[in-house]
Amino acid sequence: MPLFDKILVANRGEIAVRIIRACREMGIGTVAVHSEPDAGAPHTLLADEAVLIGPAPSSESYLRIDRIIEAAQATGAQAIHPGYGFLAERAPFADAVEEAGLVFLGPTADTIRSMGDKTEARRRMQTAEVPIVPGLVDPLSDADEAVAAADEMGYPVLLKAAAGGGGKGMRVVESAAELPRAFEAASREALAAFGDGSVYLERYLSRPRHIEIQVLGDTHGNVVHLGERECSIQRRHQKLVEEAPSAVLTPDERAAMGAAAVRAAEAVDYRGAGTVEFLYQDGEFFFLEMNTRLQVEHPVTELVTGLDLVEWQIRVAAGEKLPFAQGDLQLVGHSIECRITSEDPFHGFLPSTGRVEHLEIPSGPGVRWDGGVSEGFEIGLHYDPLLGKLIVHAATREAAIDRMARALDELVIRGLQTATPLHRRIMRNEAFRSGELSIRFLEEYAELLEPGADGGADARAAAIAAVLLEEAYRARRAPARIGGGSSTALPSWRASGWPWQGSV
Amino acid sequence: MPLFDKILVANRGEIAVRIIRACREMGIGTVAVHSEPDAGAPHTLLADEAVLIGPAPSSESYLRIDRIIEAAQATGAQAIHPGYGFLAERAPFADAVEEAGLVFLGPTADTIRSMGDKTEARRRMQTAEVPIVPGLVDPLSDADEAVAAADEMGYPVLLKAAAGGGGKGMRVVESAAELPRAFEAASREALAAFGDGSVYLERYLSRPRHIEIQVLGDTHGNVVHLGERECSIQRRHQKLVEEAPSAVLTPDERAAMGAAAVRAAEAVDYRGAGTVEFLYQDGEFFFLEMNTRLQVEHPVTELVTGLDLVEWQIRVAAGEKLPFAQGDLQLVGHSIECRITSEDPFHGFLPSTGRVEHLEIPSGPGVRWDGGVSEGFEIGLHYDPLLGKLIVHAATREAAIDRMARALDELVIRGLQTATPLHRRIMRNEAFRSGELSIRFLEEYAELLEPGADGGADARAAAIAAVLLEEAYRARRAPARIGGGSSTALPSWRASGWPWQGSV
Repeated sequence: MPLFDKILVANRGEIAVRIIRACREMGIGTVAVHSEPDAGAPHTLLADEAVLIGPAPSSESYLRIDRIIEAAQATGAQAIHPGYGFLAERAPFADAVEEAGLVFLGPTADTIRSMGDKTEARRRMQTAEVPIVPGLVDPLSDADEAVAAADEMGYPVLLKAAAGGGGKGMRVVESAAELPRAFEAASREALAAFGDGSVYLERYLSRPRHIEIQVLGDTHGNVVHLGERECSIQRRHQKLVEEAPSAVLTPDERAAMGAAAVRAAEAVDYRGAGTVEFLYQDGEFFFLEMNTRLQVEHPVTELVTGLDLVEWQIRVAAGEKLPFAQGDLQLVGHSIECRITSEDPFHGFLPSTGRVEHLEIPSGPGVRWDGGVSEGFEIGLHYDPLLGKLIVHAATREAAIDRMARALDELVIRGLQTATPLHRRIMRNEAFRSGELSIRFLEEYAELLEPGADGGADARAAAIAAVLLEEAYRARRAPARIGGGSSTALPSWRASGWPWQGSV
Repeated sequence: MPLFDKILVANRGEIAVRIIRACREMGIGTVAVHSEPDAGAPHTLLADEAVLIGPAPSSESYLRIDRIIEAAQATGAQAIHPGYGFLAERAPFADAVEEAGLVFLGPTADTIRSMGDKTEARRRMQTAEVPIVPGLVDPLSDADEAVAAADEMGYPVLLKAAAGGGGKGMRVVESAAELPRAFEAASREALAAFGDGSVYLERYLSRPRHIEIQVLGDTHGNVVHLGERECSIQRRHQKLVEEAPSAVLTPDERAAMGAAAVRAAEAVDYRGAGTVEFLYQDGEFFFLEMNTRLQVEHPVTELVTGLDLVEWQIRVAAGEKLPFAQGDLQLVGHSIECRITSEDPFHGFLPSTGRVEHLEIPSGPGVRWDGGVSEGFEIGLHYDPLLGKLIVHAATREAAIDRMARALDELVIRGLQTATPLHRRIMRNEAFRSGELSIRFLEEYAELLEPGADGGADARAAAIAAVLLEEAYRARRAPARIGGGSSTALPSWRASGWPWQGSV
C-alpha cells in the first residue's frame, strides 16, 4: 500500500523531475502543474497527469496558490510537494494546503514563519544555545560604546547601517585604533544613504566557509542530522559547487554542529527535511539561517548517507516514524555536486537562452545527473537558469574530484552557454583540490572567471572545437595507423561529443 | 604518480568506454584501437589517442594480436586491458603481451589455459575441494552400472553422449525403473548421431539458479571474494538480468560459496578480477566454470561493495597489494543490471540494425548507465548487440526493482529494436519480484516473449505511441485545466520521450 495514492508537484525543472521519480519508485501517482511554455517540459511529460495552470510569469502560474490547490483537488491528489523556490517557504501556501484538507510535504506553516523572520529566528537560536555571529542588535550610541563592544567580541568587527544594506554604511575594522574614525564614517554614510545614521556592530569573519547541516524530523518528536555539506564555492551567495563531507570538519566538529542543528530544528518543532546553515571559521561556527525545505544540493547528502531524502519527506509527512537513530547513520565516501546553469561564467554569468540542440549526459561509475531539460527544449528567461546537477560519489575527496573532472569532460550541452567550463577549471584548481576554501574563493581566484585559452564558454567553443578536434584527431591517428584498412573521416557532428581531457 | 602512463584498451563498445573512464579518473592516458566502422564510435572518440587497426570483421581488427601489440608499442602504452570477449580469454594473447614487454591486465596465460581446458579445470577443482556436479567422466559399460552410479548420486540423473552435444543422446531420468530403457535409447541415439554409443551420467539439476562469485587476487598471494551475483534470467545461456546479492542465499551459503570460489582461484594462482560460476539448487552448489576476466555484469558487484573493479584490476596488475581482507568487505543494499541489446525480444531476439536516432538515458538517484553508443551512431551486425547496461542500486531488492522499472520507463532508444520492453515486463513479473528464479525462468514464463498489448518492441511502438500519447496527453489534460492560459500542443518529437509508467 503506497502512503499516498497521488502527489501533486508544485514546481518545475530538475526538482520536479526528481520528486516525480521518487513517487514513481514508491508506487505513488504524480500530477505535474505547468505554465504554458512548460507544456513540453520534462516534468510535465514525466508525470502521470499534468495540469496547465497559467502563462509564463510565475506570478500567473507557479506562484498561484489558488490554481495549484484547485489542480490538486481536480485530480484527486492527496499531498503537495513544493520543491524549492516558488512557494516552498511561503507560510500562507502551507496554510492553504492544510486548509484544503491536503498534506503539505514540508514543515508546518508556523515553523516556516519562525525561521522566515530573521529576528525571531535569531532569538530562538539564542534560546536553543545555537551559536550565532557575536554582535549587537541595538544601534550603538557612540564610538566609545563601539570600542567597548568590539573589545568584548574580538577583532575584526563589521560596522553595519541599521537602516539599510548593499554595502552602504558598512566598514570592516581590524583594531581598536581604527574604530572611532570608522564609526564616524559609517554613520555619516548611513545618514546620507538612508536618512538614518544608526550603525551596529558584529564580529567579522574574514574567510569563513559555508557549511550546513541536513536535518530530518518526524512527527513523533525525533530529529536526526545527516552530516554536513560544504557550499563555500559561491558567487554572490549563489552556490556553484557543493560537497559532503566538508574537507575541513573533524568528527568532533561534525558532532557539535550536528547537535546544534538538531537543537535548532527542535526549537521550531521541525518535521521533514531541512537545513541549518552555518558560517565556519577556524573551528568556530555560527548560525546563518535555516532553510525549511529540500535544498538544491540535497543529493550529496543522499550519496554519502544512502538515504533518499524525497522518500523520507514523503514518509514522515504520512506519519511514519524514523526507523533509525543518530547512531545508526554512517557517512560513506565523498560526494560533489556541480550546478550546471545556462549562464556564461566568463561574461558576468550572463543568462543564456535558446534551444538545447544536443545533450550528452555523463554516466558510468559513481555519476548521477539530476536534470530538468531534454534535447529540443527551449530555455527562456522566465525561470531559474539551473539546467541540471552533475553529482559524483567516490571513496575519497580526491577520487570524487577526479571523477567529477572526468564527468564534466563528457557533458555536452549544445545550443546554450553553460557553467560547465568554469566547473572544469574549478576541479583542476589547486586550492580547491587541497580543500583550502572559503566563501571568498571566486574572488581570490578571479582568473577562473576570465575567458581563457580554452575558448571561454561552451557554445562559442563548440564551433571551433568541431574543426580543431577533427584535425587533431586525424593528426594523432596518422602516425599510429596499423594495418591496411582505409581511413574513415570523423563525423563532424561527433567531433566535440566527447571532449578531450585537456579541454580546460 | 599514476601506476601507468598509458593503457591501451583492446576492445570496443561499453566495456572500452568503462575502462577509459577508469583510466581517466586515475590520471592514466588511454589508447583506443578501432575498426573502420568504429572510427566515430564512443570508445574511439573518448580515448586520448586512437589507432585504426583494420576493417570490420573482428578477425581483421579486434582479434589481430599483432596489430594491437604494434599499436601499443607505437603509442608508448605500457599495459593492455582486454575487456571481455575478443582476446580476453586467449592465452596466446596474454603471452604475446608479456613477450612484448607490456603488462596484461588480467591473469597469467597459464591461469587462462588451466581454466579454459574444461577437463583440466574439473580436475583442479576436485583437488581444491570445490563442489562439482556429481557425475562420471568415464562412459558407462551397461545399464546395471548406470543404475548403481545413479543410486549413489541421487535422482534425477542426466544421460549424456560421450562423443557429442546438442541434446543428441541426452535423457533426463527420474527413477531407477526408467533408467535401463533410457540407457538403451540414449546409447542408440548417440551411436546414430556420432558413430559412438558411449554414454555417461551426471546428476540432473531440474531448476538450478546461476549464482557466481566475484573474486579478486593480487600478486602477493591474497585472494578475496566480493560476494555473489545471481544471473538466472538467461536466454540460451545469454544473461539478460543480473543482481547482487542473490535473493536466495543465506549468509552461511554466501560464506561457503565464497570460500569455494577463493579455493578455486588459489588453485590456479589467480591474479586480478575473475568469476567462479556455480549452479545452485536447494542449498547445494556446483562449479560450472571460471571466467578469467572482467564480466559484463561486474557493475552490480561494484554497487554493493563500493569497489571499482577496473581500478583494482589496474592496481593489482601494477603490483599493489590488496589493502583489505575478506572481513573488511561489506555488502550494502541491492543492485540490478539489465542488458540493453539491439535485439527484438518478441521475435526470437532477431538482431536489429540501424542508426541510433534518439537516445535518452535515465538518471537520477541510484541509476547508472554504462553505455557504448551515442546518438547518430550506426549499429551493424559486426559486433555484439550490447548497446549498454542499465544498472540501479537501492536499499532493498524490492526498491531496486521499482527503481529499475522507473529507469526502464525513462530509457528511450529510437531507430532500433531493443530488449527494453522485455526488461520492463520482467520487472513487473511476480515470480521475478518474489525472487522465485531458476535458469528456466524464460521458458517457464514464455508469455514474456510474446508480442503483446504493449505493441511489442520499441521501434514499431514508437510511431503509434507518438500519436496515441499525444492524444492521451491532450485528453488527460483537458478536464484538469486550471486558469485562463491557452493550451499548447505537445511537440510530437517529444511525445514518446518519457514513456508513461503503464507503457508495458
